[in-house]
Amino acid sequence: MGQPKKKIIIDTDPGIDDAMAIFVALRSPELEVIGLTTIFGNVYTTLATRNALHLLEVAGRTDIPVAEGSHLTITKGTKLRIADFVHGTDGLGNQNFAPPKGKAIEQSAATFLVQQASLYPGEVTVVALGPLTNIALALELDPDFAKKVGQIVLLGGAFAVNGNVNPAAEANIFGDPDAADLVFTSGADILAVGINITHQVVLTDTDREKLSKSKGKLAQYLCKILEVYFSYHHVAYNTAGVYLHDPTTLLAAVNPSLLTYAEGVVRVQTSGIMRGLTIFYNKKKRFGEVTEWSDKPNVKVAVTVDAPAVVELVMERLMNS
Amino acid sequence: MGQPKKKIIIDTDPGIDDAMAIFVALRSPELEVIGLTTIFGNVYTTLATRNALHLLEVAGRTDIPVAEGSHLTITKGTKLRIADFVHGTDGLGNQNFAPPKGKAIEQSAATFLVQQASLYPGEVTVVALGPLTNIALALELDPDFAKKVGQIVLLGGAFAVNGNVNPAAEANIFGDPDAADLVFTSGADILAVGINITHQVVLTDTDREKLSKSKGKLAQYLCKILEVYFSYHHVAYNTAGVYLHDPTTLLAAVNPSLLTYAEGVVRVQTSGIMRGLTIFYNKKKRFGEVTEWSDKPNVKVAVTVDAPAVVELVMERLMNS
Repeated sequence: MGQPKKKIIIDTDPGIDDAMAIFVALRSPELEVIGLTTIFGNVYTTLATRNALHLLEVAGRTDIPVAEGSHLTITKGTKLRIADFVHGTDGLGNQNFAPPKGKAIEQSAATFLVQQASLYPGEVTVVALGPLTNIALALELDPDFAKKVGQIVLLGGAFAVNGNVNPAAEANIFGDPDAADLVFTSGADILAVGINITHQVVLTDTDREKLSKSKGKLAQYLCKILEVYFSYHHVAYNTAGVYLHDPTTLLAAVNPSLLTYAEGVVRVQTSGIMRGLTIFYNKKKRFGEVTEWSDKPNVKVAVTVDAPAVVELVMERLMNS
Repeated sequence: MGQPKKKIIIDTDPGIDDAMAIFVALRSPELEVIGLTTIFGNVYTTLATRNALHLLEVAGRTDIPVAEGSHLTITKGTKLRIADFVHGTDGLGNQNFAPPKGKAIEQSAATFLVQQASLYPGEVTVVALGPLTNIALALELDPDFAKKVGQIVLLGGAFAVNGNVNPAAEANIFGDPDAADLVFTSGADILAVGINITHQVVLTDTDREKLSKSKGKLAQYLCKILEVYFSYHHVAYNTAGVYLHDPTTLLAAVNPSLLTYAEGVVRVQTSGIMRGLTIFYNKKKRFGEVTEWSDKPNVKVAVTVDAPAVVELVMERLMNS
């Protein structure tokens, strides 16, 4: 029966494009979604949990557990930055959906991550779509988590381009820079997809129209919540389309060959006006002194993407869903 | 008799490529070098002053005043980073030249800069080849210096590329990040040439051979001191050539059309592991919140360079000098 399915946990802050990514995952035969963990970012964590449960109910997949994540950054006391102006105050396009019937499991996101990685060593892919707090907490909880987890595919960073929170920082890394630096330097097998990549992957008005004509339940649902996301992009970026940040990252876990990668060390600035900035170093250039990058493990950072193929795959997975 | 000559002051930390830039300036009919000011960087400030006086004696231009600059960063207590491993311990290729006969003038570099800019408002171009401490002190000394100075053409920053001190920072900005941030946001007419530009401008072994066959006194002198600089580049970058950081910046003041520029705001990270990092923002992308770049004045940052034309012009000015 071909390849075994890839076990994935989606760490998510739904979020309109999170909803798309989750639905794409649920409709990807290559994947077995073994859990969702929640985090602040597009919304506060409590709402992220509620939305994760709601989305699984919409998709008829209440068999998948949701573990609630951290309500705070790993360095307490940092004011959270919540991007509700992008996704609506409810995180899902201001649709006032009824509360979900289900509940999160008792375990915290970090405990769940550690447990699953221990249960299936080397087999679990974590797709991290928000700030990296839960992953950092999992690393703190179990020093072997970096080795036990299969791969961490994360949406984060702005490599050699301006950020989207400010000219330096991308939103997910900015959300918890200390956690991000810890994750990037943990030694885990990491594949980072930054906004230098995802800003090339645009779902257009035409694509949305196609989706809206589909009979699929999930496609219909997404078209409703996408309205707010399209409006934001129109005002902020003057585009007749939306960036597919989260679906692109999810598909990097499904089919890594949709992107190409460079290997090297990523560090995160954790203070000052460039808090949340990511700097990648491929270890080729030599320096006179030992640097803060010198002895750190490599990660993979996406450098190119086959954007039309990603959009096509997203559409294909959602059209009859 | 055509255009009036452009009055320039070179703020310099000689330094082998500083010596080249100074000689190119002295042999450029478009320029009137009205002074040198000195700064730490390639060497400590005391040695920079000694070398500046020495280079003017070599060129027979002891009529040009040298004003000694700051021995410390504007935020005291920062350990200076001296790049003597690039330029030799004497800054001039370990040639053990005799001490200069001349002396620096009584005025400090900052006072001299303010005085000259006040004497010739809008007419003085400062070519800054080291850390920006003296320029920052001039701005502190005279709040109108930013308006009085004609243009500040500076070598500094690593825009969308790794630095040369570490993956984040370029040496001149790293040398005094607080000064650099002050200068970049001062409102002065600034043209920044970063190592993303100067690493494209390479003087090859062949060029050096050509220089060594020239009868020119300055060409002969430079060939001697260039040895150490070539060795460093060979070891550090595995190149059979040297980067023309300072001569490229000097020529940007002579003929700005050798490069193209983007306009926007540059800020400098002043703390943490990315201390000395420069981030450019062209004000086109919109953000949800006011950022540390939002209300700051624009500068020009070089984005492309006609590298062969720069090398040719350097060679032309030095060949029979």
